Amino acid sequence: MATFKLVLSYDGTGFSGWQRQPKKRTVQGVVEEALVRITGHRPALIGAGRTDAGVHALAQTAGFQADIRLKPAELVKALNAVLPPDARVLSAQTAPPDFNARRSARSKIYRYRIYRRPVLPPFLSRYVLHWPYPLDTEAMARAARLFIREDDFSAFSSNRLLSPVRKVIRSELRRRGPELHYTVEADGFLRFMVRAMVGTLLEVGRGRISPDKVEELFRKKQRTLASPTAPARGLWLVRVVY
Amino acid sequence: MATFKLVLSYDGTGFSGWQRQPKKRTVQGVVEEALVRITGHRPALIGAGRTDAGVHALAQTAGFQADIRLKPAELVKALNAVLPPDARVLSAQTAPPDFNARRSARSKIYRYRIYRRPVLPPFLSRYVLHWPYPLDTEAMARAARLFIREDDFSAFSSNRLLSPVRKVIRSELRRRGPELHYTVEADGFLRFMVRAMVGTLLEVGRGRISPDKVEELFRKKQRTLASPTAPARGLWLVRVVY
Repeated sequence: MATFKLVLSYDGTGFSGWQRQPKKRTVQGVVEEALVRITGHRPALIGAGRTDAGVHALAQTAGFQADIRLKPAELVKALNAVLPPDARVLSAQTAPPDFNARRSARSKIYRYRIYRRPVLPPFLSRYVLHWPYPLDTEAMARAARLFIREDDFSAFSSNRLLSPVRKVIRSELRRRGPELHYTVEADGFLRFMVRAMVGTLLEVGRGRISPDKVEELFRKKQRTLASPTAPARGLWLVRVVY
Repeated sequence: MATFKLVLSYDGTGFSGWQRQPKKRTVQGVVEEALVRITGHRPALIGAGRTDAGVHALAQTAGFQADIRLKPAELVKALNAVLPPDARVLSAQTAPPDFNARRSARSKIYRYRIYRRPVLPPFLSRYVLHWPYPLDTEAMARAARLFIREDDFSAFSSNRLLSPVRKVIRSELRRRGPELHYTVEADGFLRFMVRAMVGTLLEVGRGRISPDKVEELFRKKQRTLASPTAPARGLWLVRVVY
């Protein structure tokens, strides 16, 4: 048995998220299906991040074990030959037997893209949130920095977990031409966490809440006090760090 | 009655081309439908170029006449509010009564995008031709320059026309990062002309025909001698010049 590490990129628009579900088209589902066609059996594919429906990946990482003799470069070619065009394998390599794409990850980097100009180019409509209205980006940047902490992020998740503490090591807002890019890196993310954080940043940008409200959300730890969740299509899994 | 000039951008993937057809989703169809909702009647919309199914537009131009009192900027907002996200109005302006988007155009610029790296990013699959195989781009560039002429382009069209003479004033191949961009400007284009020219350039790049074959095609004027038509998805209407 060899252990493989794959780096995948996908357009989340046509997928019901990463995780395999009966009768739904999911990324894990189509990649496992491709592995069946190449290896003859169905290895369990473990993804580093379980992205939601509509969320894109520049570089997701996934691992599996299989008894195949293909060289990594041949595996990339073989998988891309059978995968649909909205999911691609960027690279493959062999990994130590104890490699686990999720547990071995040191951190993950997500980016949220907000398009600011009045008319959204048709080629971007699947990939960004269109927000042509005024935003106080200074206040948003200040609020973004308050997310850099090791803390209970329950206020930014729909799930109640036993261990809702995550360590955010990077959280910044940058202007990139006609877009705002919010980039966040953490040792892990709760369900909907990035989109809930972006929802809060947008409320700050609109002047509905002050940046200090972020501190209050961390103290009270209640999702109901937080802001609406930003739409999936603007969210990108940028990279998984090992 | 006022005459309006619209600049439109669209993702051609979900459209059966520009031109209105019964029971088909076309760009002209959805824009006229949007005009009905805003003006209350259906003005005939004339497009500068009748792009085929799957062909994209960075900036198509179209004109219509209507008895409306909206300012151009209001018209842009109103149209984009009712148009689907894969078709956008970039700008509107009033035009002289004799403006005709097709006949008034001095030239049109098309671009064909060819992606060269082994793995095609999923976000580009609708927008480029993926060609990871070897290409003699020097020979292609030489052949591209041979298209700069005023001549009978019958060998590069599926239609037999009474006046198949077109004047190509720019025809060049450039490297743009991982892509090859073929850009062509002419006073007009025959049906499938750009895609047939790109098909010929690809045959030259693969070494199947020499650049001089282009001269022979112009002499013999037979489509059957020319190369396969390149797929629609790599083709972009860049701009219409007035």
